[in-house]
Amino acid sequence: MFGKVLIANRGEIALRVHRACQEMGIRTVAVHSTADATAMHVRLADESVCIGPPNARDSYLNMAAILSAATITGADAVHPGYGFLSENARFAEMVEAHGLKFIGPSPEHIRMMGDKIAAKNAMRSLGVPLVPGSPGALESFEEARAIAEQVKFPVLIKAAAGGGGRGMKVARSAEELEEAWRVARAEAKAAFGDDSVYLEKYLDRPRHIELQVLADTHGNVVHFGERDCSLQRRHQKLVEEAGSPVLSQADRDALGARVTAALARLGYRNAGTLEFLWQDGQFAFIEMNTRLQVEHPVTEMVCGIDLVKEQIRIAAGEALGYAQSDIRFNGHAIECRITAEDPETFAPSPGRVNTYHAPGGLGVRVDSALYSGYTVPPHYDSLVAKLVVHAPTRAEAIGRMRRALAEMVVAGIRTTLPLHQAVMEHPEFQAGDYTIHWLERFVAARQG
Amino acid sequence: MFGKVLIANRGEIALRVHRACQEMGIRTVAVHSTADATAMHVRLADESVCIGPPNARDSYLNMAAILSAATITGADAVHPGYGFLSENARFAEMVEAHGLKFIGPSPEHIRMMGDKIAAKNAMRSLGVPLVPGSPGALESFEEARAIAEQVKFPVLIKAAAGGGGRGMKVARSAEELEEAWRVARAEAKAAFGDDSVYLEKYLDRPRHIELQVLADTHGNVVHFGERDCSLQRRHQKLVEEAGSPVLSQADRDALGARVTAALARLGYRNAGTLEFLWQDGQFAFIEMNTRLQVEHPVTEMVCGIDLVKEQIRIAAGEALGYAQSDIRFNGHAIECRITAEDPETFAPSPGRVNTYHAPGGLGVRVDSALYSGYTVPPHYDSLVAKLVVHAPTRAEAIGRMRRALAEMVVAGIRTTLPLHQAVMEHPEFQAGDYTIHWLERFVAARQG
Repeated sequence: MFGKVLIANRGEIALRVHRACQEMGIRTVAVHSTADATAMHVRLADESVCIGPPNARDSYLNMAAILSAATITGADAVHPGYGFLSENARFAEMVEAHGLKFIGPSPEHIRMMGDKIAAKNAMRSLGVPLVPGSPGALESFEEARAIAEQVKFPVLIKAAAGGGGRGMKVARSAEELEEAWRVARAEAKAAFGDDSVYLEKYLDRPRHIELQVLADTHGNVVHFGERDCSLQRRHQKLVEEAGSPVLSQADRDALGARVTAALARLGYRNAGTLEFLWQDGQFAFIEMNTRLQVEHPVTEMVCGIDLVKEQIRIAAGEALGYAQSDIRFNGHAIECRITAEDPETFAPSPGRVNTYHAPGGLGVRVDSALYSGYTVPPHYDSLVAKLVVHAPTRAEAIGRMRRALAEMVVAGIRTTLPLHQAVMEHPEFQAGDYTIHWLERFVAARQG
Repeated sequence: MFGKVLIANRGEIALRVHRACQEMGIRTVAVHSTADATAMHVRLADESVCIGPPNARDSYLNMAAILSAATITGADAVHPGYGFLSENARFAEMVEAHGLKFIGPSPEHIRMMGDKIAAKNAMRSLGVPLVPGSPGALESFEEARAIAEQVKFPVLIKAAAGGGGRGMKVARSAEELEEAWRVARAEAKAAFGDDSVYLEKYLDRPRHIELQVLADTHGNVVHFGERDCSLQRRHQKLVEEAGSPVLSQADRDALGARVTAALARLGYRNAGTLEFLWQDGQFAFIEMNTRLQVEHPVTEMVCGIDLVKEQIRIAAGEALGYAQSDIRFNGHAIECRITAEDPETFAPSPGRVNTYHAPGGLGVRVDSALYSGYTVPPHYDSLVAKLVVHAPTRAEAIGRMRRALAEMVVAGIRTTLPLHQAVMEHPEFQAGDYTIHWLERFVAARQG
């Protein structure tokens, strides 16, 4: 097992990885920008290294500085967390080239899944269901039109190199297609330096359902069931559940069997998540994330597994100590992502947290790097806490989340706590009756 | 179901009951002394009533004031928590006489188990194993001597009305017996106004193992396995585990079957705990607590049950929705009781908590009424937080507790956090190799 792990991240996920390491008896190295010198992940780590100024490009994305920190401190391995360099194949290669273990998949698989078209082609060939659409980047507008007529409107034009909703446009009719084609390509060019786009059937009321997998280096692949992450605003997830209110155990088993077989054939290793749109009982693969997800805790709560410890064990060459049939799904878990934003306008609200008080008690988990007196810097993602609850049933989990939200105090900055309270109180949420469009409409209605 | 519950307690257990009520949609009434006006249980409750001055006799033990508060606020039921009036049969009777439900056992069973001799006689007749000793209160010193010679030294002289170690003396030989008899009776008289004492075989290296049971009003009785509470100082538990490192599932099943059969015959209802000494594979019943225990969370973690919600449902007349065979034991849980005391001398350390920071992350539960800026009053029990961890194995649970203890901040007062860290690091604790005497010796060695 590793003696020392460098955590190439910040915030709650750096703390999450630190906790797993500490529990395993592994020493930790934190890296931080000058803006994060007093951050919780730095305070708790065994060692820390300042890697640059606040701008992420110069610190958390600065591969040379991070690799120097790893070398200087004698780390054996690097955990990239999520975001930043976690899906950068070049970084994974450089980590391995420095004689360190990268706690994640191979650079080849990171690269394959980072190219959304290559990922879909790979999954199609491996028997994973896809949404109907163009087989790859569109050669011409005429091709877009032909395929749109074949799969039927509405359709979506999407940047091949995209993510986060940029370079993505819906066309509901032949008349709208040309505009969507033009705008999506221009956005793709601006955002990613590449105007390749593809087309797919637009599902008008889908849910976002994703499957968590783990694969070791001995050929074992297992899944830990699905997460329903349909509650999104501008393609950012706000609330996630495990399991999905619409899936049965049979649905879960069937999807899991197809996905684990596909990843075994691919030779994938470490943690990964396959994201699907789900509508009318059909799954359509959209992308694979070759890293730990923000929302991984809900899976941990229902499966009784520590995904980060598993990632570390796999990277160290250990075999999974269990088979698919050993994995049990107990109860229901919900995560609310609390962000430092105005709960109505979503304007960022960095600043000093005068008082932080985490809720406690049975079935409540808080993953947060906040503390009383901490100043949330303006430079990074606005996520400041993940509040997670677990209970025997979904109804009890909602009751637990409502009381936990009511106990939580983050004073001094604005947060989305009131928005989460309102979601939990809504009859449609309580009924599990929502699609990926539900939250946007709910937010718009609140804004009046 | 009840519309409103009055919580006749303070501190973390009042908060625990409030949380269960709030999750069930039940309104809560807090009661408090003038010393507790700004306490967390008061701040979070839907309503609160001041019931008297700091001295517990005039507030938390003031039945008339509590019943008036229940009547004025229109509560349907009273939850007594633990300590204070929780095992006062008269209080339970008065609650019922006021037309309210007492969330606990019948007054008859509270009274029976409150009399330690009657409790033992009842359990003996119901087939529960006991430690050998006098069948009841000793009539004379001559009787004490005769029975001591029969069960063999060492023996224990114990107050019949006792608890908390008062009126309890060990005699290791016939020479020591007379002194033990005299001192135990004098202490019993002083502490309880009753000098009745009984005698039993003194087990020299036992473990304290207790069994959690629930019984509804429809004749169903189930158990939720054992807790090992051997780590005690002056008969106060400091660390508790579920399950015990020394019991197998077969041991658990066998003890559980005997106990649930006994309680079914007794017609017991609501939550209860049977405490045993365990040595060389033999259980000896010592007492039954007719209430929720401080250490109930470890059972909740391994069984996935909410014992307080179950207490409330049972009091409302609902049947248990499951059978013994539905109850699963998953992983291992440990609780550390953090008290406001000097970790070496155990001198009380009340005062202002300048900063309180609870640990978080996977498998960590904190039950505490602390908050930053709260002043721990000098009038009550020194327990300020229960830190509970859950993990697939005992070794992982210890690793998790160590890192959680390292994250926890209670600044401004002294606490037993360092003592718990030292216990978790000790090879004998890690090996599960301890008796009820282990902690006293460990503390003495630390004190040098």
